[in-house]
This record gives sequence, C-alpha cells and structure tokens, in this order.
Amino acid sequence: MDIKAYMRETGQAVRSAARVMAAADTAQKNAALLAIAEQIDTRRADIAAANEQDMRTGREQNLTPALLDRLELNAPRIDAMIAGLQQVAALPDPVGEMTAIRRRPSGIQVGKMRVPLGVVGIIYESRPNVTIDAASLCLKAGNAAMLRGGKEAMHSNQMIGRCIAAGLAEAGLPEQAVALIATPDRQAVSEMVSMPEYIDVIVPRGGPGLIKRVAADAKVPVIKHLEGICHVYVDDQADLDKAVAVAHNAKCRRYGICGAMETLLVARPIAAEFLPRIAAEYSREGVEMRGCPATAALIEVIPATAEDWATEYLLPIIAIRVVDDMQTAMAHIAQYGSGHTDAILTENHSRAMQFLREVDSSSVMVNASTQFADGFEYGLGAEIGISTDRIHARGPVGLEGLTSQKWVVFGDGNLRP
Amino acid sequence: MDIKAYMRETGQAVRSAARVMAAADTAQKNAALLAIAEQIDTRRADIAAANEQDMRTGREQNLTPALLDRLELNAPRIDAMIAGLQQVAALPDPVGEMTAIRRRPSGIQVGKMRVPLGVVGIIYESRPNVTIDAASLCLKAGNAAMLRGGKEAMHSNQMIGRCIAAGLAEAGLPEQAVALIATPDRQAVSEMVSMPEYIDVIVPRGGPGLIKRVAADAKVPVIKHLEGICHVYVDDQADLDKAVAVAHNAKCRRYGICGAMETLLVARPIAAEFLPRIAAEYSREGVEMRGCPATAALIEVIPATAEDWATEYLLPIIAIRVVDDMQTAMAHIAQYGSGHTDAILTENHSRAMQFLREVDSSSVMVNASTQFADGFEYGLGAEIGISTDRIHARGPVGLEGLTSQKWVVFGDGNLRP
Repeated sequence: MDIKAYMRETGQAVRSAARVMAAADTAQKNAALLAIAEQIDTRRADIAAANEQDMRTGREQNLTPALLDRLELNAPRIDAMIAGLQQVAALPDPVGEMTAIRRRPSGIQVGKMRVPLGVVGIIYESRPNVTIDAASLCLKAGNAAMLRGGKEAMHSNQMIGRCIAAGLAEAGLPEQAVALIATPDRQAVSEMVSMPEYIDVIVPRGGPGLIKRVAADAKVPVIKHLEGICHVYVDDQADLDKAVAVAHNAKCRRYGICGAMETLLVARPIAAEFLPRIAAEYSREGVEMRGCPATAALIEVIPATAEDWATEYLLPIIAIRVVDDMQTAMAHIAQYGSGHTDAILTENHSRAMQFLREVDSSSVMVNASTQFADGFEYGLGAEIGISTDRIHARGPVGLEGLTSQKWVVFGDGNLRP
Repeated sequence: MDIKAYMRETGQAVRSAARVMAAADTAQKNAALLAIAEQIDTRRADIAAANEQDMRTGREQNLTPALLDRLELNAPRIDAMIAGLQQVAALPDPVGEMTAIRRRPSGIQVGKMRVPLGVVGIIYESRPNVTIDAASLCLKAGNAAMLRGGKEAMHSNQMIGRCIAAGLAEAGLPEQAVALIATPDRQAVSEMVSMPEYIDVIVPRGGPGLIKRVAADAKVPVIKHLEGICHVYVDDQADLDKAVAVAHNAKCRRYGICGAMETLLVARPIAAEFLPRIAAEYSREGVEMRGCPATAALIEVIPATAEDWATEYLLPIIAIRVVDDMQTAMAHIAQYGSGHTDAILTENHSRAMQFLREVDSSSVMVNASTQFADGFEYGLGAEIGISTDRIHARGPVGLEGLTSQKWVVFGDGNLRP
C-alpha cells in the first residue's frame, strides 16, 4: 500500500467534504448526529462482535489490563456513545454567530462571525468510543474530521465508522466528512501531521508519549494536552474546614484524571493545624504522602525529592510542601506546574484575585476542587480535550474551540479614503 | 559567537521578563510606552545617524530602491513611530477582562479571563519602524517580545532598541521584556522558531519567502500572513454605480497592499453594461486588464491564463472573469483565493448573507472595498499583521490576537460530585 498516496487522496476527499459541512445548516447536522446514534443502536451486535475481535487479539498480544479496559465496548459504553451523540445534537450550533458588530467612522459596520476550522485531525489510542466523541463534536462545529485510532481498536473503529457514514448519508451529508484512516501503518500518522493543505488542526488524544511525538513532527497546528501537574495552595487565611474537604476531593475523587491534584502547598502559619487533619483523610484513603522537611516535622511522610514536584502521578500519591506565603506558592507553581489547573483556598479576597490573575494555567480556581476542570462541568456540553497550550484554546476545548472567527464587513458602497 | 547558546540565554531572559510583564498593571505599561516615545523624540539625531549608516551600507550593497525606501527612517516616519506608541498607550488594556461568567449546577461560577500569550517572537525584514510597532503592541498586551529584524537595518534597530530599553527601565519594567537579536547570522532565526520553551508564538512579517521559510521550520506556533489574492464579485443584482466606485477603490486606492483586489468577477447578465464602465476607469488609471474570453468579447483585454487567477500582483494589473452566477464566483474564490479578503457587491439580501457565510476568508465583505481590510479601519487601533490562518486569529491581528483566555472558577469550598 502506498501510504503517502492513500493519505493524500483521503485528505483531498475530507477537504472537499469540509466545504459541504461548513455550509450545512443546523437541522442537517443534528439530523446526521441523531441518525448516527440510531445506526449505533441498531448495530449493537455488530459493534460488540467487532470489539470482541479486537479484545481477542489484544489478549493474545498480552495487552495490559488497563489497555484492555480502554479497548472494551460493553453495553453501558455503547449507551454512552448514543447519549453523547444526542447531547451534542442538543447543543447550540456555534457556527454563524455574529458578535461585536460596530459602526466605524468610515461608515462600514465591522464584526466577527464564528466559522468552522475546516478539517480536524484526531490521533488517538485504544479507546474506540473516542471515535464517536471526536466525530460528533467536529460535525456539530461544521468541520470534517480525519480520525486515526489505535491499531488495537481497528475492527471496532471500522464498525463505528460504518455507522457514522450511514448516518451522514441519511442526512444528505458527505460520508467523507468523517474519514477513518484504515491502515495500522505508523507512517499514516507522520503523513497526517504534515499535510497542512488538507488538515487545519491536529488534536492528539492519549498519553504524553503520543502527544510529544505528534507535536515534534507536526507541520499542522496542534492543540496539545500535556501533563496535569495540578496544585492546591492552602492559604493561611483559608477556611480549614473547606480546605480539608476540597484538598480531599481534589486528590481522592478520582486519581487517574488530569485535573487531579498532585501537589499540595500549605502556608506555614496554618501547617501545624491543617496538615494533621488532611493527613488523617489521606491515610484513611490509603494515599501515600511525600513531603518536604517542614511537612515531615508535622506529619508522617516519605521524604519528597525535587522529582516529586515535577511528577504527574495519576495515582494515590501526593507531594506536600510547606511554603512561606502565596508568593512562594505561586513561584513553586510557575517552576514545577504544567499550566493545567491550579487552585487557591483562601477567604482573603485580594489574594484570591491576585492568584487568579497571576497563575498562568489553563484553569485557575478559588475555593474549588481542581477536579472541576472538565468540559461538562464548565457547561461546554462535551470536550474534545483539555489544552495546555496558549494559542487558540486553553483548558477544556468544546465546540467553540473547534471553530474560528472571521471578520465580516457590511457596507453600502463604502470606499476606503 | 555560539549562536545557540546566545539564543537560549536570551530566551531565558525574555521568558522571565514575560512573567513580570504579565503581572504589570495598565498604568505601568502605558508609562513605559510613553517613556519610549519620549526617548525616541529625544534621540532623533542618533536614530537618523544610525539609519544613515544602514542606508549607506545598503546603497553600497546595491539594495533595490524599494528596499532602500523601506529601510529609510525620515522625520515623518520617526513622528509616526512616536504617534503609534501614544496611540497604543491610549488603547484599552485587554488583559484581565473577564467574560461569560456563569453559575453552573454544581454551584461553581465559571468564565474566562483574558491573559497575555507570554513571549512573542517577531521576525521581520528591512523596515526598522516594525521594531516599534511590534514592541508596543506586545508590551500593551502584557507580553515580552523577541525581535529579529533584517540585517540591513541593524544599526537603526539597535538605536531604537536602546530607546525601548530606556523607556522600560524608566517605568520600572525589565529591559529584557523586548530583546533585540543582535546577530545577523541566519541561524538565529532557525533557533528562534525551534524554542517553544522560550517563545509562545512567532509572527513573521515580510514577503511570502520569509513566511514560508519560517513556517516550514517552526516548532513554535506561527501566526502567518500569506498572500492576499482578493476578489470582488459584482452580482447581477448589484447597484452598478456603487459597483464601479467600489471596484475602482478596491484596485486603485493603493496597488501594493495585501487588501488590494486582484481579481474582478462579474455576473454574466450585467457584464455587457458593467465592464465597459469599469474598464474606462481602469484605463484612465493605467491599470493593465487581463480577461477571460467572455470579458475579451466585451472590452479590450490581454487574454488571462490560469496563472493570472492565482497571482497576487500588488501592481496596476487586474484579472477579470465573467461568471454565470454567485455559485460560480464562490467556486472560483474557493479554488484560487488565498483566504484573505473577498467582497460581494449586491443589493440582494439573501445572496449577501449566503456569500458572507460561505466564503471562507479572513474578511468577507458586502458592498465595501476590500482595501478596508486593516486593523485601524476595523477599530483595533493597530495591528501586528493580518493572519490568513484559521487557528487562534484570522484577519487583522491587534491586541486581542496577542492574548489568550484562561478559565477562571469561583467556588466556596465546592467539591466535584
């Protein structure tokens, strides 16, 4: 197979489908999403069979239990795909929204109109339900999508791809608006990230290894999500009851998500009171505590090393450091953080607002758990990922992040002086 | 000189200056801009002398008259730099603006806060006044800047750089917030575009050659401005008096700017009436007309080739094509346009709105001259460039395009369920 030729051919097809998608109206896009949902509902048995084929191969190849779990499409996960499509259909259409139309001294009226990005390329790993998540958001935002899932999920993805194609066709939209890359060859990924003429933005979804590899080779803009080394700073003017509850939730609600707190920073004046209280919570949950010398003087911890401050554990492990004040906490976050999500717990308004302004992360929170960093919680309806970039989109990326804005000018025969 | 080491050292210094700039308040940033303006006013003679040195070398090296013209800093251009600084100081500060704060069912309040991008790298050619344009916008948006001007303007830029450093110091801001790259070595550019750890976005300003070279090597996001192949489509329901005036202005007001119309598309039903009228205008201005066979049947033109449709002349030359209808015009624009600026001239509301929605360019206009595509005309106050990209910013890029938005969350001890 000539991968380069195949990818370019697919690229051309997706690019021309993107033009049709950009002009599709809301009703047509919603009809496609609901038709895809129905296709999936109708073909549950086929999807389950295709997935079982992938699972069998995966077990033969000794995939880890974690990988096999991500690969599995059981009935609740198929239900979730259907519900996801219906939810995206119910979201407001971002395309065509005009904002900030102002009359200029020259007489023209100028403003912005929200428009699709064009072709979105998604590169992901073993989870086949990403195929539906990604396709649904791209379609609703008026984009076409080129999807490259992991080879472990090839059969599942192909079957889901057939449902998507059938749903698009039912709604009178081009099947190539969602193109699944059908080859397991890694060269397909290298081609995808170097076709700016056919792909407008790449969203890699997966572990840091995948994302760094994609970003290193990309000639196409990438919306990246690197690590989530999230901090909670407990200020000396924090309400300690709230602080214990939030620091517990931020770490223990779920350990494996990117918004989970990895480092707890505690202001020195309240450390002796706060640390034993939160340590009791973590002990009860079985969380391993690693701490700086000042922490070790107050509670039982494993000594923390510099490496701990720079680690995204995604595990029941927490690094704890006692800091002099908010300035020291912010310096620690600037040095070791990953720009994902950081929170201050304080009752002091001025400090809260300063922390909010000055901490340079995609989400900055006051008196709330870092685990709120999520598209659903923020009201986006759904998210295609969480960006730790500064350009285009930061934090949870929903429909708006999958669009751009062009300028529109209304005149009545106006000439520029 | 070890260019790599020099660039990394400079990168570190600019990155740490960016943290100070991000926290600088509006008054401090404006004080710096006005102090720089005063420095330039005070050191006019030094700037003129440095510029004369560059001009002398340029003449010795037989630079073209166009290049020498761009290089020259005469009194009106120095005045314009001072006025530019004062105008940017007078613009509202975009940083810190919070929008769309909404209460979510969980009880948290979520919204967005506008924040600086961080470090902006500008790579430009011989025009030394870009040094001030770029620095002023970057500083006002709370960014630091790394500037790499053309080697022809080295002495002029160094002198302007001294004014900037002095102005920053007067306002108590770090001099390294604007770092001028002092080596003419081309390797400096290669290093700049591959230091994502020190530079957050690159804005190349110059000819397509420079921009393509920068984009090809970049590991840092690039805000690109490629060609401006701008179209005016005269619909068969256009008001022909307005159409003649706008088609004249769009071509003839200035030939060399990117918003100048390059191709005129004329609906067949009105071609016989419209073309002779506009041709008379173009003849009077000395504009060379190149046309399709249907055009040639109505007015005297040089036969146009496919290459003409794809050319940004920036000269008194225009390509003219008769098209069947708006659909054909939009297909022509999709095939040959560069996504910069395109206009429809029509009195038909439905067609105007369809053209506005469906033409995929950074500016789309109804009954207005494409020459309006400009940051000042749009009310941005100033622009750092015109983006023909889809990601982050499209069209004229002002202060807003030099910022990003982070999420802010206000809670009262809220836990994620």
